[in-house]
Amino acid sequence: MSITLAPAAPDLDATHDPALRCWVAGAEGHADFPIQNLPFGIFTPPGESTPRGGVAIGDSILDLSAALRAGLFSGSAEMAARAAAGETLNAFLALGAAPRRALRARLSAILAEGSPDRKRAEPCLHAAADCAMHLPARIGDYTDFYVGIHHATHVGRVFRPDNPLLPNYKYVPIGYHGRASSLRVSGTPVRRPRGQIKGPDDAAPRFAPCERLDYELELGVWIGTGNRLGEPVPIARAAEHVAGYGLLNDWSARDIQAWEYQPLGPFLAKNFASTLSAWVVTPEALAPFRVPQPARPEGDPAPLPYLLDAADQRAGAFDLDLEVLISTPAMREGGLAPHRLALSNTRHMYWTVAQMVAHHTSGGCDLNPGDLLGSGTLSAPEAGGFGSLLESTRGGREPVALPSGETRRFLEDGDEIILRARAAREGAAPVGFGECRARILPAAPAP
Amino acid sequence: MSITLAPAAPDLDATHDPALRCWVAGAEGHADFPIQNLPFGIFTPPGESTPRGGVAIGDSILDLSAALRAGLFSGSAEMAARAAAGETLNAFLALGAAPRRALRARLSAILAEGSPDRKRAEPCLHAAADCAMHLPARIGDYTDFYVGIHHATHVGRVFRPDNPLLPNYKYVPIGYHGRASSLRVSGTPVRRPRGQIKGPDDAAPRFAPCERLDYELELGVWIGTGNRLGEPVPIARAAEHVAGYGLLNDWSARDIQAWEYQPLGPFLAKNFASTLSAWVVTPEALAPFRVPQPARPEGDPAPLPYLLDAADQRAGAFDLDLEVLISTPAMREGGLAPHRLALSNTRHMYWTVAQMVAHHTSGGCDLNPGDLLGSGTLSAPEAGGFGSLLESTRGGREPVALPSGETRRFLEDGDEIILRARAAREGAAPVGFGECRARILPAAPAP
Repeated sequence: MSITLAPAAPDLDATHDPALRCWVAGAEGHADFPIQNLPFGIFTPPGESTPRGGVAIGDSILDLSAALRAGLFSGSAEMAARAAAGETLNAFLALGAAPRRALRARLSAILAEGSPDRKRAEPCLHAAADCAMHLPARIGDYTDFYVGIHHATHVGRVFRPDNPLLPNYKYVPIGYHGRASSLRVSGTPVRRPRGQIKGPDDAAPRFAPCERLDYELELGVWIGTGNRLGEPVPIARAAEHVAGYGLLNDWSARDIQAWEYQPLGPFLAKNFASTLSAWVVTPEALAPFRVPQPARPEGDPAPLPYLLDAADQRAGAFDLDLEVLISTPAMREGGLAPHRLALSNTRHMYWTVAQMVAHHTSGGCDLNPGDLLGSGTLSAPEAGGFGSLLESTRGGREPVALPSGETRRFLEDGDEIILRARAAREGAAPVGFGECRARILPAAPAP
Repeated sequence: MSITLAPAAPDLDATHDPALRCWVAGAEGHADFPIQNLPFGIFTPPGESTPRGGVAIGDSILDLSAALRAGLFSGSAEMAARAAAGETLNAFLALGAAPRRALRARLSAILAEGSPDRKRAEPCLHAAADCAMHLPARIGDYTDFYVGIHHATHVGRVFRPDNPLLPNYKYVPIGYHGRASSLRVSGTPVRRPRGQIKGPDDAAPRFAPCERLDYELELGVWIGTGNRLGEPVPIARAAEHVAGYGLLNDWSARDIQAWEYQPLGPFLAKNFASTLSAWVVTPEALAPFRVPQPARPEGDPAPLPYLLDAADQRAGAFDLDLEVLISTPAMREGGLAPHRLALSNTRHMYWTVAQMVAHHTSGGCDLNPGDLLGSGTLSAPEAGGFGSLLESTRGGREPVALPSGETRRFLEDGDEIILRARAAREGAAPVGFGECRARILPAAPAP
């Protein structure tokens, strides 16, 4: 054991030990999926047609159905493995923390160097590159928040230079309902939408392909156990309702959005597609990267009591680096690696995930296992850390230069956007989320 | 046969014959469910625990599972009945018009006076009053539109007296994503939400029970066959994707809404509960009540081509009376009948349902069987026809008088709101939707 406990990370156990070694080839020092991560997802192995649950380890996936057949689980770990082995993770997400922790502990033991289970577990592994990934859950409802305060400030400045944040921002974790049906797993191409577009000097809108297509860098939050309609989740219990995390690209058609969004909010500007990373990274895997909620700037109001909890203030935030990369057709032809557009961090969330859950349910709204929350765009305060092109190019006015000699104001057909997340701190093994990646297809013919 | 064909209702057949008589007691002249209606729903008979599909006829429900076992169906009607007999109607909604019409024709024949099937069908009937009703479908996504132009005008006038409608209103069928999880079937009580409330002179918001609780009178639209992501539904095919209609009460917390809704739209002000009528009234049942889309006032722009279709203009609107009634605890104690708050009509929709579907999918968003669209509040232009208390009381300034001697600015605990719809025209049997009814419970303790 060589765990370094930190005040903000009280829940560390043997599964977090950075010295823990893994017998799966390629898992040691893997950028995303070392043995300390163990995220869950839904995949189809090569040559098969039925999706099933698996666990990412290095460049491999452990097939939970096969592992169950091999008799690798018992007790509550077996119960959790059965819930996670089906065509979606909804039943697993619904279980809550205790069975999830039991399964994690057992998976860690199975995959640890020297495990007596290695011989039975080895045949249950597939090369991840050969497998198809699917959305991890049937998403009942998807809610997008707006807790990235720097993004809200940058966007608000366009409309209100002197007073960019609206008066409710520091009281209300602002959110709105998104479209669940058009969420797709990483790798699914995204078709450029058509929509009504009206320039400031146009007399009337026209129906045309989006000309200001953008990405949005977001943290995705998977709801675990739900709550009943009319029964709010108290802030002190809110974290228990979160089963995992991922990356979300909330693609945005800025020109469609500008014309349509008053008075009821974004609609077609967002619902043509949103892209999710494939793996559900558990709260347990992220426990070493908990940090105190950043102090509110002097003069900011305290959260109202229903959003205030000492434990949440102490360790309710995360320190995760978030990265956006672009790869254009010319870059790929020229053999150039994807180019980093932004490096941001989850510490730029003004509200914690627990505050988002407590607020969402505070009027009685029911959350269900497999519901998805988005954080909203997470931008750093300074250039180089902006989570959207709207910010990086100042509304398209200042194009971004790419290593291919190209520039971008907004996304062009064939462009690919890749989101990554990386958690690292002294005394903990670094873990990542896997990619959230998608390429832009040209608009379809007009209907 | 005594059908009167009208130009706006080309699809009438023998099932619409107003002279058609029914052997089920109470079905003749039933306000909602005569034999010309035949709506579908999900119910549980007394003493049983498994929900199943049924058809409303008078004050009875025909159990489709039992009718299937009795051998009452064959061919495509049997296929449709099997799809409609399960725990939700999703599979039935997905079938599209042809099997739905075949089942309707067969049900009409079974239930018609003199039917040779009466003896086998009679044991399949339950008294509706003894059955529990459920939501008719698993609702994947719920979208709320804003096509009631008089409501939009009345609400907009509060903020912009000289120019109440925003510039996009007559180009864009404005809509936004609602919360699917908190939709409930008629009869389910609604708990008054708590939320952040900030009066115009308050320095900061407080977290308190809603003081401006309101109803919204809406037409609900059930999506039948879906479309694939990235493949818009052309306006000429949009009506084919609609499987039925119902009534929707989009309860609204006006004080929570006023504080939270900028910049991304209503959220907690709506997602504490929305109430749906239990029965899916088919496009076939409403065919006699199709009317031309009301002419746009002089000076209004023509719809953009993707929203314009001659057949839709000719017969894409409906003539349905919509009614809101209130029953307060004092009224019930005093033996007073529910009091009508408003009489409106679906002709007050500025956009047709086909235009809503075409717009929703125009950027590529996928709709799925069992998705729900709301029309937005449908108010008449004049007093007596307002679809919300916000309008009837001019924002709470002019209370409404009730026959009990009470007044209401907004809803109080124990108040019950009842929505009804009635379609009637010469030469057609009148049909209704059944009730959309719910009572307000006091707010729960603070979380």
